[in-house]
Amino acid sequence: MDQRLERIKLTALQERIVSAEQAASWIKDGMAVGLSGFTRAGDAKAVPNALVKRAHEEPFQIDVYTGASLGSGIDGRFAQAGIVRKRAPYQSDSLMRSAINSGKVQFVDHHLSQTAEWVRGGVAGPLDFAIIEALGITQDGLLIPTTSVGNSMVFAHHAKQIIIEINTAQLLELEGLHDCYEPQAVGSRQPIPLVSPRDRIGTKGISVDTSKVKGIVWNDQADSPSPIEPPDAETDIMAGHLLAFLRGEVQAGRLNQNLPPLQSGVGSVANAVLHGLLDSEFEGLELYSEVLQDAVFDLLDSGKALFASGSAITLSQPYMERIYQNFGRYRDRLVLRPQEISNHPEIIRRLGLVSINTALEFDLYGNVNSTHVSGTKMMNGIGGSGDFGRNAQLAIFVTKSTAKNGRISCIVPFASHIDHTEHDVDVLVTEHGFADIRNLAPRERAERILANCVHPEYRPQLQDYFNRAIAQGGHTPHVLDEALSWHAKYMRDGTMLKKSP
Amino acid sequence: MDQRLERIKLTALQERIVSAEQAASWIKDGMAVGLSGFTRAGDAKAVPNALVKRAHEEPFQIDVYTGASLGSGIDGRFAQAGIVRKRAPYQSDSLMRSAINSGKVQFVDHHLSQTAEWVRGGVAGPLDFAIIEALGITQDGLLIPTTSVGNSMVFAHHAKQIIIEINTAQLLELEGLHDCYEPQAVGSRQPIPLVSPRDRIGTKGISVDTSKVKGIVWNDQADSPSPIEPPDAETDIMAGHLLAFLRGEVQAGRLNQNLPPLQSGVGSVANAVLHGLLDSEFEGLELYSEVLQDAVFDLLDSGKALFASGSAITLSQPYMERIYQNFGRYRDRLVLRPQEISNHPEIIRRLGLVSINTALEFDLYGNVNSTHVSGTKMMNGIGGSGDFGRNAQLAIFVTKSTAKNGRISCIVPFASHIDHTEHDVDVLVTEHGFADIRNLAPRERAERILANCVHPEYRPQLQDYFNRAIAQGGHTPHVLDEALSWHAKYMRDGTMLKKSP
Ligand SMILES: CC(C)(COP(=O)(O)OP(=O)(O)OC[C@H]1O[C@@H](n2cnc3c(N)ncnc32)[C@H](O)[C@@H]1OP(=O)(O)O)[C@@H](O)C(=O)NCCC(=O)NCCS
Ligand SMILES: CC(C)(COP(=O)(O)OP(=O)(O)OC[C@H]1O[C@@H](n2cnc3c(N)ncnc32)[C@H](O)[C@@H]1OP(=O)(O)O)[C@@H](O)C(=O)NCCC(=O)NCCS
Repeated sequence: MDQRLERIKLTALQERIVSAEQAASWIKDGMAVGLSGFTRAGDAKAVPNALVKRAHEEPFQIDVYTGASLGSGIDGRFAQAGIVRKRAPYQSDSLMRSAINSGKVQFVDHHLSQTAEWVRGGVAGPLDFAIIEALGITQDGLLIPTTSVGNSMVFAHHAKQIIIEINTAQLLELEGLHDCYEPQAVGSRQPIPLVSPRDRIGTKGISVDTSKVKGIVWNDQADSPSPIEPPDAETDIMAGHLLAFLRGEVQAGRLNQNLPPLQSGVGSVANAVLHGLLDSEFEGLELYSEVLQDAVFDLLDSGKALFASGSAITLSQPYMERIYQNFGRYRDRLVLRPQEISNHPEIIRRLGLVSINTALEFDLYGNVNSTHVSGTKMMNGIGGSGDFGRNAQLAIFVTKSTAKNGRISCIVPFASHIDHTEHDVDVLVTEHGFADIRNLAPRERAERILANCVHPEYRPQLQDYFNRAIAQGGHTPHVLDEALSWHAKYMRDGTMLKKSP
Repeated sequence: MDQRLERIKLTALQERIVSAEQAASWIKDGMAVGLSGFTRAGDAKAVPNALVKRAHEEPFQIDVYTGASLGSGIDGRFAQAGIVRKRAPYQSDSLMRSAINSGKVQFVDHHLSQTAEWVRGGVAGPLDFAIIEALGITQDGLLIPTTSVGNSMVFAHHAKQIIIEINTAQLLELEGLHDCYEPQAVGSRQPIPLVSPRDRIGTKGISVDTSKVKGIVWNDQADSPSPIEPPDAETDIMAGHLLAFLRGEVQAGRLNQNLPPLQSGVGSVANAVLHGLLDSEFEGLELYSEVLQDAVFDLLDSGKALFASGSAITLSQPYMERIYQNFGRYRDRLVLRPQEISNHPEIIRRLGLVSINTALEFDLYGNVNSTHVSGTKMMNGIGGSGDFGRNAQLAIFVTKSTAKNGRISCIVPFASHIDHTEHDVDVLVTEHGFADIRNLAPRERAERILANCVHPEYRPQLQDYFNRAIAQGGHTPHVLDEALSWHAKYMRDGTMLKKSP
């Protein structure tokens, strides 16, 4: 007997095994599919790759919903094959990005807690297929997810049919890690009964209507590692500023010494800043986050962090090897949840999170751009930064003060795209310092940001803008003709820096 | 015996009665005070007026926190007297607006659910005094609010001292209307146990530490009526478009015939649009809103609406007379809550609200400006529009397509200030139609908005902008040099309309 069949404990489903190619052939032009996968973790791999192969023979286009970004080069190959019409809610692939920015793919940039509401509410979809990676299927018909839960539960519950990819390359010890809970339909909702990052409120797998399971596919491809950059001298300094801020809050009696649960965003900078907590006085930390990156495991190893709740585990290659070889050490201190729950406004507000996300740029008044380079070109998407930023007790955004070797100032007169408004941003951190802008009027905020965050090379020209804006007056002073001129100048001259006179 | 003393059932407090002047004398330069009052309803009146008088003799400045806007000309007199240093979270007075826009008053524009968190968390304040209008004080020391609850509870709980204004002009039948609940401190919060607009989860008044009550002042001044404009032909048409949208949602099976609980924003347009439901097929409506304006009472009268939950009752003069003379008819169908609860993300998401708020302008891609005229001058503030817009099931924004006799287009290339980002806006309504932009990519949104919302006079020039932006490419195409040029042109030429060639 095929050893792998032991993964399908509900034996009636064993006869549904098909090849990836066969499963891919069911996906027709015009369909909408929901794929498992969240920041490269737990993505369905076999059927998507078979779909790309099919595209060589036959033209078709589909709408693709996921948890968040896919790994395994799938988004890139989807884009190259031209088979995606609509893509939501998040991606981070350079080829997909080009297709989006040229208008070939219609990308819808959702808050990551929103997609589930829209699938359940009939706004996104209807989904023809859910394609979900699983460790296996229990006797009761629960799908056990792998390294992410993401949107898999809502996709499996609401798609017309389900294809399951059983991934034998994923660690069997992941079983028991997941806590699968779906809120009731609007109109009969009860409070979500989660009051601590450690609480378990759901089931260990995703219940499925087995009559919808059209096929089961084998797969043995590992997740792709994350391309995260290790901390560097600048991010160490930024982490220092963040710690100084947090320390001040503890001293002022506004935070406890062991801090509220932390959330830390995707990317190198957020990871590096979180890493900075390792060398701090803070102890007994808990995370209530979305993607659990390398730094979370360092914090668990050191004993600084006691517990981490997330929706996915996304590690760099060296961390993958280290962590998954000793997974038993971590299992009891981790839980993975649907992204609707990891990012739920109700929970984030209740727990009073400290949330740390990365900005591309922010402006004089504290408006943050997380998504659009020069206001027009999509980078990745807002991800969960809005879910967390809006509802957290402390919404902290970090960025280096310049990009592209100083040719771009990440602090500008007017953010060229706004993902997080002045109302939602509490603290801004660059390598030059932090600006705590809570409960300040716009002009007060501008002064703090100018003094603490801007790169010295850009400070004179930003101060000059601010002075001239104030001369024109208004609650939020601007020189409208110049507000976006720094970005226009960068596109024209390759730098935002004005020549000194 | 002074009949009024019956209002103070906790007799030990009767000896704390002082004159408004005496109470005002306790407020020192540099203090922070929290005043009751929400959209002109239930504002403390006597002590604020005495403070203004004192300013003639003695210079001082204070920070003023409220529920929302004050009536009774208080904000205007505060501004004229120059006694306000910082003002939060909302105002709507023309003199205060001027002081804010000239930079004399530091205005902090909070989400209305946020202020309570910041007062409780020690970010706003500390408050030296809470000055709270009440109907009376019960034997158990509960303060009974009047026509609003607003932030009175959190102010009373967290200010160092309390001054109570007992207002004998307010209807005694208001007692029993209020449901006062304060969430636990962050770190030990339980779910808020409210699952229907009708639920009562708190006490009928605000519990106070009587040792903090420094004085009680008599007051007999009525609330100021709201200056709301009645519905007109254009708002009737807008209401028609909104109804068409809602009808479509019911037909598509996404909403029930009696609709989810409704929220409707402040101002003439939102009131008029809500009024439009009177002549619709929708029945059994419930409101879970913030300010209850005239139209809510028409809906209750007609039997279309069965219940309304809010934080304040704000009526025009004729409605005030009509409603308060027959208040018994409404009492069982109303509840007033702290604004933290009426606007709480947890509840708004749970109940799946349909939320309707007014925009000043919005842009091609669905970003909404609710606050800043030409990006710089504060109108009123974001109020609750962000609390509702972000968390509602349906975030609908309405505005006429032009302002100032057609010299301003309310649909522009790039919103000159962004309060509600493209991620948070679901449906836009003008007198030309509605654009349902849910789950659409930016370019798809632009096409719908161009086709359905823009005034025909402005459509050619907006289409022209969009065409040229697309030629430059990007996920959200823009011509950066021109993005804010319509506003600059209005400031220069007095109109956004380009002359036809
Ligand atoms: C903002 C974000 C792109 C930063 O990613 P990161 O890996 O931490 O940061 P980096 O400094 O490496 O910047 C990434 C790229 O953006 C560029 N960049 C940074 N600031 C820029 C700016 N103001 N203008 C143009 N480009 C900029 C960098 O140069 C770099 O370019 P490269 O890839 O060509 O080297 C990323 O955090 C993100 O997508 N955030 C939005 C989603 C989110 O916050 N989710 C949180 C919940 S998980
Ligand atoms: C946006 C808002 C000002 C509209 O108020 P309204 O009474 O419904 O609308 P009106 O059409 O009368 O517009 C108010 C004024 O703004 C002006 N205006 C409207 N659009 C404008 C624009 N795009 N640019 C400049 N001025 C504009 C109008 O001409 C009018 O001016 P006037 O007072 O000189 O006559 C008001 O709804 C608001 O403050 N909203 C923010 C808070 C909120 O939404 N709270 C909701 C939860 S309660």
